[in-house]
Amino acid sequence: MPHAKFQTFTTDAQPDRSRPRLAALQAELARARVAGLLLPRADIFQGEYIPASENRLKWLTAFTGSAAFAIVMKKRVALFVDGRYTVQARSEVDRGVIRVVPLAEKNPDEWLRDNAKPGVRIGYDPALFTARGLKRFASASEEAGFVLVPLPADPFTPIWDDRPAAPATPVVDHPLHFAGEEAASKIERLQAKLAGYKLDALVVSECPSLNWLLNIRAGDVPHLPILRAFCLVPREGRPVLFVDPKRLEAGLAKRLAALCEIVPTQAAPHDGRAELAERLATLGKAGARIRLDEDTAASHLAGIIDAAGGKAVTAPCPLALMKSPKNATEIAGSRAAHLRDGAAMVKFLAWLDREAPKGAITEIDAAVALEGFRIATGELVDASFPSIAGAGPNAALPHYRVTEATNRVITPGLFLIDSGGQYRDGTTDITRTIAIGEPTRAMRDAYTRVLKGMIAISLALFPKGTNGGQIDAFARQFLWAGGKDFDHGTGHGVGSYLSVHEGPQRISKLGSTALQPSMILSNEPGYYREGKFGIRIENLVVVEPRAIKGAEREMFGFETLTFCPIDRRPIIRSMLTRTERAWLDAYHAETFRRLSPLVPGADHAFLEAACRPL
Amino acid sequence: MPHAKFQTFTTDAQPDRSRPRLAALQAELARARVAGLLLPRADIFQGEYIPASENRLKWLTAFTGSAAFAIVMKKRVALFVDGRYTVQARSEVDRGVIRVVPLAEKNPDEWLRDNAKPGVRIGYDPALFTARGLKRFASASEEAGFVLVPLPADPFTPIWDDRPAAPATPVVDHPLHFAGEEAASKIERLQAKLAGYKLDALVVSECPSLNWLLNIRAGDVPHLPILRAFCLVPREGRPVLFVDPKRLEAGLAKRLAALCEIVPTQAAPHDGRAELAERLATLGKAGARIRLDEDTAASHLAGIIDAAGGKAVTAPCPLALMKSPKNATEIAGSRAAHLRDGAAMVKFLAWLDREAPKGAITEIDAAVALEGFRIATGELVDASFPSIAGAGPNAALPHYRVTEATNRVITPGLFLIDSGGQYRDGTTDITRTIAIGEPTRAMRDAYTRVLKGMIAISLALFPKGTNGGQIDAFARQFLWAGGKDFDHGTGHGVGSYLSVHEGPQRISKLGSTALQPSMILSNEPGYYREGKFGIRIENLVVVEPRAIKGAEREMFGFETLTFCPIDRRPIIRSMLTRTERAWLDAYHAETFRRLSPLVPGADHAFLEAACRPL
Repeated sequence: MPHAKFQTFTTDAQPDRSRPRLAALQAELARARVAGLLLPRADIFQGEYIPASENRLKWLTAFTGSAAFAIVMKKRVALFVDGRYTVQARSEVDRGVIRVVPLAEKNPDEWLRDNAKPGVRIGYDPALFTARGLKRFASASEEAGFVLVPLPADPFTPIWDDRPAAPATPVVDHPLHFAGEEAASKIERLQAKLAGYKLDALVVSECPSLNWLLNIRAGDVPHLPILRAFCLVPREGRPVLFVDPKRLEAGLAKRLAALCEIVPTQAAPHDGRAELAERLATLGKAGARIRLDEDTAASHLAGIIDAAGGKAVTAPCPLALMKSPKNATEIAGSRAAHLRDGAAMVKFLAWLDREAPKGAITEIDAAVALEGFRIATGELVDASFPSIAGAGPNAALPHYRVTEATNRVITPGLFLIDSGGQYRDGTTDITRTIAIGEPTRAMRDAYTRVLKGMIAISLALFPKGTNGGQIDAFARQFLWAGGKDFDHGTGHGVGSYLSVHEGPQRISKLGSTALQPSMILSNEPGYYREGKFGIRIENLVVVEPRAIKGAEREMFGFETLTFCPIDRRPIIRSMLTRTERAWLDAYHAETFRRLSPLVPGADHAFLEAACRPL
Repeated sequence: MPHAKFQTFTTDAQPDRSRPRLAALQAELARARVAGLLLPRADIFQGEYIPASENRLKWLTAFTGSAAFAIVMKKRVALFVDGRYTVQARSEVDRGVIRVVPLAEKNPDEWLRDNAKPGVRIGYDPALFTARGLKRFASASEEAGFVLVPLPADPFTPIWDDRPAAPATPVVDHPLHFAGEEAASKIERLQAKLAGYKLDALVVSECPSLNWLLNIRAGDVPHLPILRAFCLVPREGRPVLFVDPKRLEAGLAKRLAALCEIVPTQAAPHDGRAELAERLATLGKAGARIRLDEDTAASHLAGIIDAAGGKAVTAPCPLALMKSPKNATEIAGSRAAHLRDGAAMVKFLAWLDREAPKGAITEIDAAVALEGFRIATGELVDASFPSIAGAGPNAALPHYRVTEATNRVITPGLFLIDSGGQYRDGTTDITRTIAIGEPTRAMRDAYTRVLKGMIAISLALFPKGTNGGQIDAFARQFLWAGGKDFDHGTGHGVGSYLSVHEGPQRISKLGSTALQPSMILSNEPGYYREGKFGIRIENLVVVEPRAIKGAEREMFGFETLTFCPIDRRPIIRSMLTRTERAWLDAYHAETFRRLSPLVPGADHAFLEAACRPL
């Protein structure tokens, strides 16, 4: 089997160990005098990616997916997963002890209402929940009469014998020629905001924000180049960074020492929580007003502040909206990363075009080949996420992840590949859907509707103040006209050599943040015919001001960052308007102009043909 | 001067009395040991229209607009108004004692932060605020240190010597052939919901919901045919209606007595609040969980329930979503009302077309004439709201209300008229913008963009679950493409012989309620060029299921209820797509087909010409 550097196609989960592990956990719960445990797939930082040492849920249940929630009771475990994971979960876990519950059938809080009797004590690790995340359980507890009990210690600590070490990767500088703004300047801007909000301090618990603020990066989790750590930023004076100083590279250690107070993370579990708590208690005693991030701050932090006499204020972290509009250096970096990435994509598409018709290429082959072309740029640090490479019905699962068990040969129809690279100058994310042989009329109709929606977003003009929720339907209108839709957002925010899923900007029904110039977003409508095929076309775009003759409002539009041919073969030409054809032809002309110097040899002819006018 | 039956063009406000009234109020406040008073333009029901006897703010300040907030301090009154009312407020009030503060400059709570010293006591009448309405003042109080004090009695009662009597209009039956569902059936459906929510009772404080639930109407406020009253609906058994039984018409009294327990409103101020409080206290003592409407319930009600030992649950009133999808009888009634109203509009437009070019017709003349045509139908109960009749720059004020002081002759350009009728079978609301002579190119360009947006909503197709916030931009996209926009929602919900502004359905940036079949909404994009002209084109529409060949989702669209020609003369034909022209031609053909029998004589030729294909 071929293998990739940044992605696995097998699993190291151990379903046969679930029974003894569950028995050990239940003994721990009994010692803590609780009858059950709420177990999220989360760490104290509420990150999208968690290190193996934090994946309690996988260790216990053998479920390997990226989203789940478990409730451990005396005689059973209920594992809650969404629609994309129901089948996978049922195949991965020991169903003798673990019952898979689709979220569409029942939420964990509803399940507890039915299964926890009045008076029963249900434990949870307060470090693994935000206050908001606990709310639904608090309501259920109030109504059903069971008692929620915060546990004083992680019940997995005494029983997880083969627990991997917590990540402690080297922390490196994210230099000014990539970051575009000195950390000192970012801190100054943040402190001015804290003064404006009359706050005495801010707890930074969202790790990408911390890495952005201090211009640092590390490799504590896959696909997201971050140091997992806390930072406490006072309104005046130096931020406090909780980190093992041995992890800091030499040059960086000096810069950081000048910028921050470094507090070593000595107390277990060595993630800084103990040292942070101590500082919060001290500030609380002095009556400080301290902001906690409502999306990531662990639920016990507010109590530490309030109990000491201070005031915890839980609200969005101001860093989210500071880092999401990129500066000129970051945008220039993103443009450069996208050209490099686009050239690698073209080489991959040319390879696919040569090899796939022979009928022996699998999804894994494609994912490995694409990674190879990205690695060959010499600049790839990591994949932005595990590639989604789906042939036939596999592509109908929007979050499909290819494994050896699901791997399919790419046969005639449509092949979908969604992937991205982490480069030090920028993060990329691109999806193309490729005709293999002759797609059916139904495939071509849907492909053209998806493309029309993607072009509608590319061409959108909107006034300052408009949020992504207001323009999301531009991408859907042509599918709607055919009685179709897709069940994910049209676009998510993207970080700068940071998270490929960055908030708060998004183009979706739920997008309530005004789109601001220099925010980077994806534009990725799709269509999924269950059991048959899947389509998604994705470019990254950046919001830019637009001068319009006679405009009475400040108007914005999107500059496209991604350059890579969009397969012309499945398009039903008559379904495109003149404006849409003009956009596509101009996009391809520009793609050819920019990528031509980067794509030599035989692949150049492929690029030229792929970029012909429609 | 011509005058209208359902609209005034003058004001009976008395700015010269503000000084003595303010002095008397300040003496009352001193007696209550508060230094200031928060004074909303509201009654205990938080209705859009309030009776004269509840307009404390107008009595004190002489401001006659429909939205304002005052803060009465020892030496001054601050009157907060939004952009549409700044000029009017400054011209109406005695600026020697009242300072007009535009909301764009400062909110009342911000103003208090700056003007109320720590420790100062600021009073408010808890009956005139919802809990949510108080929140911002509570935050300001916490931060600035002033003290919010609920007053035990209305400070206006002892001093308002010429206070009009509280309305006590006859309460009449809204018969089944208009209502379409027996009150008993509605109550049963509501009680099933209360059981589902595990509630013991619901306080109905939104008056249109109460009138809908019991199939009754009255005339307590202008333009909205309602009884102002409370109702307490238990999970089982008869609802309690708090009303003076002498107000009930004979037949209705019998029907209601069988349906409800009638509790006479004996205690001052005779609106049932005292009797309701008594019942809530009794239920509270028995530990009842009682739902209060978060949009309208007075802020002191929750305290009465909780203090007695019950549990107040403040959330949206379930009646809002029960009454907004109309039943078949209500929709049939609305269709009939719209044909009648459309014919009256055509007669008005024909009259305007004959008379306006002579150069002597004013905005007031037009409003009076239109009302006359509606009255001539023999079915008009009231106007749905005071007509907005705007010529030239007056039309650039979206909520313009013509008065003798602002009245303009209708001169060449565009004339905007937004009006509606309350008929027993339905409520109408229609806006047309009419070319007078030759509109300019800028007018025609903007008119065509507004029309394209209005057609886009008319043609919209969307899946079940879509809310109005998602499709609002369909109406704006053509204005956006020209760097223009409008600063109001695209559409609001409309009641059935009830409020012309009904929630929760709406088509606007803020529309978060899924659009359901049979909800009635307005579709009214506009454009306003300050100091020059204004454009709005409005039809009412009703959400309907749509069968689409091969559809994979449950799809909805809009059936148009309003039939009345849309002025073809300002359209720039080349700016319309073939699809848009086809919609307009079909709309006009259908308008002619439906209205032709209702428009005899000379007006028929006008209708025929106005409905020609483009």
